[in-house]
Amino acid sequence: MSNVAIAVDLGGTNVRCSVIDDAGRVAFDARQSSDAAEGVDAVISRIARMIDAAATDQQIGASVAVGVAAPGPLDPQRGIVRYAPNLPGWDEVPLRDRLEELTGREILLGNDANVQALGEFHFGAAQGVRDLVYVALGTGFGGGVISDGKLIDGAGGLGAELGHTTVNIAGPRCTCGALGCVEAYCSGWAIARHGQMLAGTDRSPALAAAAAAGEVDARAVADAAEDGDAAAAAIIQQAGLALGAALGNFVNIFNPQMIVIGGGLAEIGTPLLEPAEATLKQFALHDMLDGVELRRSRLGTRTGLFGAAALVLKR
Amino acid sequence: MSNVAIAVDLGGTNVRCSVIDDAGRVAFDARQSSDAAEGVDAVISRIARMIDAAATDQQIGASVAVGVAAPGPLDPQRGIVRYAPNLPGWDEVPLRDRLEELTGREILLGNDANVQALGEFHFGAAQGVRDLVYVALGTGFGGGVISDGKLIDGAGGLGAELGHTTVNIAGPRCTCGALGCVEAYCSGWAIARHGQMLAGTDRSPALAAAAAAGEVDARAVADAAEDGDAAAAAIIQQAGLALGAALGNFVNIFNPQMIVIGGGLAEIGTPLLEPAEATLKQFALHDMLDGVELRRSRLGTRTGLFGAAALVLKR
Repeated sequence: MSNVAIAVDLGGTNVRCSVIDDAGRVAFDARQSSDAAEGVDAVISRIARMIDAAATDQQIGASVAVGVAAPGPLDPQRGIVRYAPNLPGWDEVPLRDRLEELTGREILLGNDANVQALGEFHFGAAQGVRDLVYVALGTGFGGGVISDGKLIDGAGGLGAELGHTTVNIAGPRCTCGALGCVEAYCSGWAIARHGQMLAGTDRSPALAAAAAAGEVDARAVADAAEDGDAAAAAIIQQAGLALGAALGNFVNIFNPQMIVIGGGLAEIGTPLLEPAEATLKQFALHDMLDGVELRRSRLGTRTGLFGAAALVLKR
Repeated sequence: MSNVAIAVDLGGTNVRCSVIDDAGRVAFDARQSSDAAEGVDAVISRIARMIDAAATDQQIGASVAVGVAAPGPLDPQRGIVRYAPNLPGWDEVPLRDRLEELTGREILLGNDANVQALGEFHFGAAQGVRDLVYVALGTGFGGGVISDGKLIDGAGGLGAELGHTTVNIAGPRCTCGALGCVEAYCSGWAIARHGQMLAGTDRSPALAAAAAAGEVDARAVADAAEDGDAAAAAIIQQAGLALGAALGNFVNIFNPQMIVIGGGLAEIGTPLLEPAEATLKQFALHDMLDGVELRRSRLGTRTGLFGAAALVLKR
């Protein structure tokens, strides 16, 4: 039998659990709602039951460890989720120890975006790449950096919060309290917020219509842009410009071989990524730009699961 | 005899050469003008003669290697200075091989700001610190990062160009071609340029007087600010704000234990560093800010020499 790991990806909406071997084969794939409203204990119990079910289904012995990707900021050394904006009530939760007690297995815990970077590095678009910048465009803007083959997570394991780097000291307020973070332009919540503000004006007939039909989210803004609504298109373009400037910063800091862009928001595609790539070329130093390749994630929504498996299989 | 290295620091104005041992004792200290106008060959010959003189003076055998800090961008693996804005005519110069031929010694070459970071890490303010962000405020804005005890210089050895990260996508043009790099606010050339522009207006009597008396440089702007000239003070304050926002970005990316600020421009002191620290606190995520210490360099103008010695002694 090949070397396997149980992989868990805990998000604000869903918990996923797979069994993945060191060749990247997925042998089990379960998904349940996170149901965070039920409380921390209920979510942890649910994760433990999913782990047990995966082990039973795949006849996996008790010595096989579990990799867990969880929202941050978290302390990977102590195994504690410090807080999680998308999981109400999560405050200094010792997730590793709790899951070890419930499952009897060794648990390895990592910040979701850092774990996703490991997924791309070991199983995805960045295999063989020693210097990688990974960005996850979702509700927020996550990031993970691999330098000379090693994840950069800093003294307390809290890095690399790439989304909370400013590209405009006079820019819009971010959820973190700072101004002009790239996340305040290029994330699901930021695009939605801009769209909601425009929907209340006479600038965007498409977004006003979307607001009348329901909530204006990032998808609604992208759809309005695709349908030719100029104001909505400008939101997406501005998100792309900010993304490109941030990527330029990361190139100049890390001199990477590759940038991988993942996350659901990247599905917007060309209207977001074309201005990003053009702006990246304006902001990155040419010596470094020449050596860097820009790619989309190949692992889709499983990036975190592959990375969680890598925590175990590639430690 | 303790373990020693010959250390060379090549700058746009001076070449310095020392002999430094692994306890950080400096046994020889020579300085000559770079005289870059005499051409690449003349500068390289001068460096080689300084190395020979140091070896003769200190009776150092031929097996002792030489660490060289040089302006970048440079390729540390191949030992080539790709170009150097402050050394006219330097274009793809194989400095390592040329010095090895002339001196018969092993030469280890590094980018000046990266080497300075090593100097602080091994001999200066950051001894014992595993995660360090170092910034050098001089004519330009240099940077070096140590993550988990290892210098981050990227796939081609060209990182970490911290000065060329934008803090304002709508900011002033930088010498690199991009907009709003922190160097375009907080560097000798940027402060001088703002001062020169103000000197031609009626906003700054002190800078107009400085222009009438000679060239307006960063020192003149700092002096005018200290004398109460409001327009000059605003230049220094804006430089500090940009510095603080950039430091906030670096904290959020690297989660360092310490930031060390070096370089001659840091001598401006409080008028520059107080707004920087206040802004850092606004831009860094609190979890990471709590763990970071902000310090001034203790090695002064010898940071590069100590780092060059570290290239040899701590490899």
